[in-house]
Amino acid sequence: MILFLDKGARLHDIEALKEQLRQMGYDSIVQIENNATTLRILNGITATDHASLFAALPFVEKVSPANASFKLVNQNVQHKKSVIRIKEVEIGGGEFVVMAGPCSIETKEQIFDIACSVSQQGAAILRGGAFKPRTSPYDFQGVGEQGLAWMREAADTFDLLCVSEVMNTDDIDLVAHYVDILQIGSRNMQNFSLLKAVGKIQKPVLLKRGLAATYKEFLAAAEYILNEGNSQVILCERGIRTFETYSRNTLDIAAVPILRELTHLPIIVDPSHGVGLRQIVPAMANAAIAVQADGLIVEVHTDPDKSISDAQQTISTATFAEMMQSLSKIGDAVGMRVRRKQTELV
Amino acid sequence: MILFLDKGARLHDIEALKEQLRQMGYDSIVQIENNATTLRILNGITATDHASLFAALPFVEKVSPANASFKLVNQNVQHKKSVIRIKEVEIGGGEFVVMAGPCSIETKEQIFDIACSVSQQGAAILRGGAFKPRTSPYDFQGVGEQGLAWMREAADTFDLLCVSEVMNTDDIDLVAHYVDILQIGSRNMQNFSLLKAVGKIQKPVLLKRGLAATYKEFLAAAEYILNEGNSQVILCERGIRTFETYSRNTLDIAAVPILRELTHLPIIVDPSHGVGLRQIVPAMANAAIAVQADGLIVEVHTDPDKSISDAQQTISTATFAEMMQSLSKIGDAVGMRVRRKQTELV
Amino acid sequence: MILFLDKGARLHDIEALKEQLRQMGYDSIVQIENNATTLRILNGITATDHASLFAALPFVEKVSPANASFKLVNQNVQHKKSVIRIKEVEIGGGEFVVMAGPCSIETKEQIFDIACSVSQQGAAILRGGAFKPRTSPYDFQGVGEQGLAWMREAADTFDLLCVSEVMNTDDIDLVAHYVDILQIGSRNMQNFSLLKAVGKIQKPVLLKRGLAATYKEFLAAAEYILNEGNSQVILCERGIRTFETYSRNTLDIAAVPILRELTHLPIIVDPSHGVGLRQIVPAMANAAIAVQADGLIVEVHTDPDKSISDAQQTISTATFAEMMQSLSKIGDAVGMRVRRKQTELV
Amino acid sequence: MILFLDKGARLHDIEALKEQLRQMGYDSIVQIENNATTLRILNGITATDHASLFAALPFVEKVSPANASFKLVNQNVQHKKSVIRIKEVEIGGGEFVVMAGPCSIETKEQIFDIACSVSQQGAAILRGGAFKPRTSPYDFQGVGEQGLAWMREAADTFDLLCVSEVMNTDDIDLVAHYVDILQIGSRNMQNFSLLKAVGKIQKPVLLKRGLAATYKEFLAAAEYILNEGNSQVILCERGIRTFETYSRNTLDIAAVPILRELTHLPIIVDPSHGVGLRQIVPAMANAAIAVQADGLIVEVHTDPDKSISDAQQTISTATFAEMMQSLSKIGDAVGMRVRRKQTELV
Repeated sequence: MILFLDKGARLHDIEALKEQLRQMGYDSIVQIENNATTLRILNGITATDHASLFAALPFVEKVSPANASFKLVNQNVQHKKSVIRIKEVEIGGGEFVVMAGPCSIETKEQIFDIACSVSQQGAAILRGGAFKPRTSPYDFQGVGEQGLAWMREAADTFDLLCVSEVMNTDDIDLVAHYVDILQIGSRNMQNFSLLKAVGKIQKPVLLKRGLAATYKEFLAAAEYILNEGNSQVILCERGIRTFETYSRNTLDIAAVPILRELTHLPIIVDPSHGVGLRQIVPAMANAAIAVQADGLIVEVHTDPDKSISDAQQTISTATFAEMMQSLSKIGDAVGMRVRRKQTELV
Repeated sequence: MILFLDKGARLHDIEALKEQLRQMGYDSIVQIENNATTLRILNGITATDHASLFAALPFVEKVSPANASFKLVNQNVQHKKSVIRIKEVEIGGGEFVVMAGPCSIETKEQIFDIACSVSQQGAAILRGGAFKPRTSPYDFQGVGEQGLAWMREAADTFDLLCVSEVMNTDDIDLVAHYVDILQIGSRNMQNFSLLKAVGKIQKPVLLKRGLAATYKEFLAAAEYILNEGNSQVILCERGIRTFETYSRNTLDIAAVPILRELTHLPIIVDPSHGVGLRQIVPAMANAAIAVQADGLIVEVHTDPDKSISDAQQTISTATFAEMMQSLSKIGDAVGMRVRRKQTELV
Repeated sequence: MILFLDKGARLHDIEALKEQLRQMGYDSIVQIENNATTLRILNGITATDHASLFAALPFVEKVSPANASFKLVNQNVQHKKSVIRIKEVEIGGGEFVVMAGPCSIETKEQIFDIACSVSQQGAAILRGGAFKPRTSPYDFQGVGEQGLAWMREAADTFDLLCVSEVMNTDDIDLVAHYVDILQIGSRNMQNFSLLKAVGKIQKPVLLKRGLAATYKEFLAAAEYILNEGNSQVILCERGIRTFETYSRNTLDIAAVPILRELTHLPIIVDPSHGVGLRQIVPAMANAAIAVQADGLIVEVHTDPDKSISDAQQTISTATFAEMMQSLSKIGDAVGMRVRRKQTELV
Repeated sequence: MILFLDKGARLHDIEALKEQLRQMGYDSIVQIENNATTLRILNGITATDHASLFAALPFVEKVSPANASFKLVNQNVQHKKSVIRIKEVEIGGGEFVVMAGPCSIETKEQIFDIACSVSQQGAAILRGGAFKPRTSPYDFQGVGEQGLAWMREAADTFDLLCVSEVMNTDDIDLVAHYVDILQIGSRNMQNFSLLKAVGKIQKPVLLKRGLAATYKEFLAAAEYILNEGNSQVILCERGIRTFETYSRNTLDIAAVPILRELTHLPIIVDPSHGVGLRQIVPAMANAAIAVQADGLIVEVHTDPDKSISDAQQTISTATFAEMMQSLSKIGDAVGMRVRRKQTELV
């Protein structure tokens, strides 16, 4: 329970208010942050019953119950979907945007080959990991900044935008220097320091759903970013952890229409991590466009078996080409156009 | 570890064999069933290492390790998908078959109204529950046999097939008398007595995935039915239980392409139970046809708010009509035709 | 929403009532069952708002909302815990009762050896499966009635009670003829036909929690049995299915104190299925008595490696002996006495 | 697949090696880090088959397969459990160490009152959050550094050690200045930047299991810390996310004996987050000591209903006192002594 106080309140007014609350049986603490002075009731259980009492107190401007957690991401806030425009590409604007590339950037040649291929086949955005979050410290941790430079050059060469993951606050400026979209990975979905930090810059953020995150937790994580001033957030469903072990995760396709009801933010799907089985990826991409997701992020490699990471879930450029044709057909059926390249005229 | 014995073996041969095994350090028991005599090694852990030793023993025809659990459902058994033909309708034969109707049969008027409506809009099969598995004994348990009679009459009147759930072995003949397809519900997916019993009749069975069943357990349950002689089994993905509570279940759309790789049996999707939210059902139906499921089973009511059960997840006939149009378009895109009615000329 | 009608109501009274409801905007259907005439409102969503209106209608005795699902199992129904007395043994009466024996009954010699051993070490009840629910139809399905006869004889010889699983309604009389407690397995926790059938006999029932059943579903399943007249139900926590695969299941020890708050029924723990790893079983038995469960059911074998089923989770008789000593010590610490044998003087 | 190269290798040797690998069909990249030069094979699937071939190449010192992820945390590394000694307290040394205190530090008076109380009742370590990871940005985020100063003073006053959470790398020095143990919360269990950073300092780290982390992922997270040089890691089981919603989480008590088999690190239990229901906390504390956990971390407040966070799961000081007595008794039964205070003579 939070009481937002009138900016005209002076310290002795606040002290008097705390005393009045104390007589009502409530202890409280004062916080001054982000230009707002708030008074929090130290009472977890019963305070919500007395919201109207609190609202009537002097210098109290408004009372915020706990469930007001979705002020900014909420669908009701604005009448239409948010559209995130990056150069010529619009995400959330009715076109289906495909992000494709390797799990890890390995060599300059590799990222150029893949960029060339996915660009020809209609991807608009190049993906690739330079800083990799890996379960084990002994797994490949990525090639670092050099990889970002290669990816940027490859993207520019083949008329693509690019996206890559940032894993900690110290790297934000570095990664943002090279890429068009900063990715926050699943394991960091509730790394609140990182969320706040990317909220303070003006670059689009691709926020992946945590592997055991509910829809509400996912939206609350996005709210952290919006609350800091950056409203360019793209949500990404990438599979949740269930009892099933045959597939890497269970791709929750229903998340797309459900989140659509709850938020104005664009929603894309990652079928690669979502199932973790390369032969299943194209079918799940079809499902994503059939439910009118705003796009796709997919792992593609010119030689998937030689991927340094995630080989099992990476499709070949040939499979990617077929997949794009299939997406175009289903897109026509559901009224979505699959965007082709970055500078394509709309 | 099971040793299948030569039919020429006599009892004293078997005794000698048991003695020989004992000297090798293995106890065993003999089972005579289904015209086969088997000898099971009483040794859970190490016996599998000695398969070749066992195979060399006298009167041992073959040795069956534990992982031979999918003899009949396995995709490799036959070169093409199974097609289940019921009157004029083929399930698994390349058409997309829609089963629609109320959660519960309530009144004769209700089932006729709904049958009339879904038939006009292109459903091929009428669904409706007469015996209802309900979490609480105080919830509505269904109208029983009378409901089946109404449904049969409604189906015949409007040129539909029909499907309904059977909950125990004693009711199989009764339900089979009225319906074209017997449904085994999620809660009974591992009711092995029931599986064996429906395996002994010659009616198609719609087997729903248990709410926490892995793909392998789902297939093993189907194997129980096939093993008794009934190979007309239709698998149905209907959502699994996960940590997410906003939706009733998490509809595992990836189950369709994954099971397709593992089995020759047809696979349909139940988006109603799969998400439990009526406004999300049409999108998930789109996803089902986009991944080339063989069909759909969906809860439809002329007045969903008045459904006696599952009101939250039941769509109106108007929504159903729109959904069928959308399915037709996506079907065209993925090369599947949505079947319209039972006697439609193919 | 169910309206229970006055027994004095005549058919034309009921017709008038249905008409009156219709004018209020509600359709309804009438059910006559178990000596009660009920009228169910055909309206899933809004009817609950009008409970008081319905209650005021003529011939309506009471109105039952959907959440009255725990009439009989509810802790508030009676002031103390239920005690289930079988011969000299009381379950739920403050003693800790240990049920032990093999997963499957294999041979007469096997069950006698194990019964002898666990009886000496203080078990009160012999467990053993004769009809086995197995994921695959090709797994060992149990030795059947012969095994029950062996177990009964072994139990009587060594002063034990005995428990075994019943898998379908047709076998209830057979199994009940031999055993003191009928077990309903996890996979059948929502086999409602079976629950109703064991509710009609007067034998204690050991009801195992389904592997994805919530506490409320577990209690609702018990309610099915009590609602038919059999109140001798023992609940058994046996592990739930989670994302963790290292252990067979996740044993939910908290289920014991939580269910204790919700129901008066006794609650025991099955550490063998709960973790599926024999070396972890004794620690989990310790946890069970530390939270004051009413007992334990555990898989014990004279030669665990040769168990025909569940070898990985079966402990040896030597481990069982150590475990019983440890349980006695912790029992003293928490004020529970570990019962020793069946006819021990209390 | 990683090849560790001989330090004598020169660049042209490495080039020759890469060329030789290329002729074998493998691409590779070179990494120089932590004084080691490694060459990674760019081949996700088939490379593991050829480990012995790689090992025979010039300048290859050893070949590391992917499953060597637990070099340092592995139980087999050292013959006995790790003991983490902080001043007079030993964690993992056979005593049961209790950490207690409020969820959030609220005021100086609050933390002093609670410290006084839990110290008298035998806690050795004071817990309290100053930087709080909260699902919503609008929830109370903690009082910050001031709170840490209060907690340090309270701990020193009442002869306690103290532990508090650190949420990002920038705050490590600050938090480490005040506390004896740095806590990494569940949401940050795979925040690898943070893990590496706390691995570089010499303070004990309390690492909480992620809410959907497997045992192996949990251990791999600990391995990140040890791999940087800090071997003072205490693991904490704090409940996992399952389908059950009645309790906040499912406390996986079996994690204690299972992790004990896998690692030499101490393991404690958090029953407060583990169940989220204050009335169940004491029973789960009993279970923790019954399975011989090395300790407990529990939320205690002098007035739990007024806790600013986690009120539902916080126990009163009176309940805490009873709990400590119960722990002592069970500790005696299982051969563990509950440590009382920090400077108690052992």
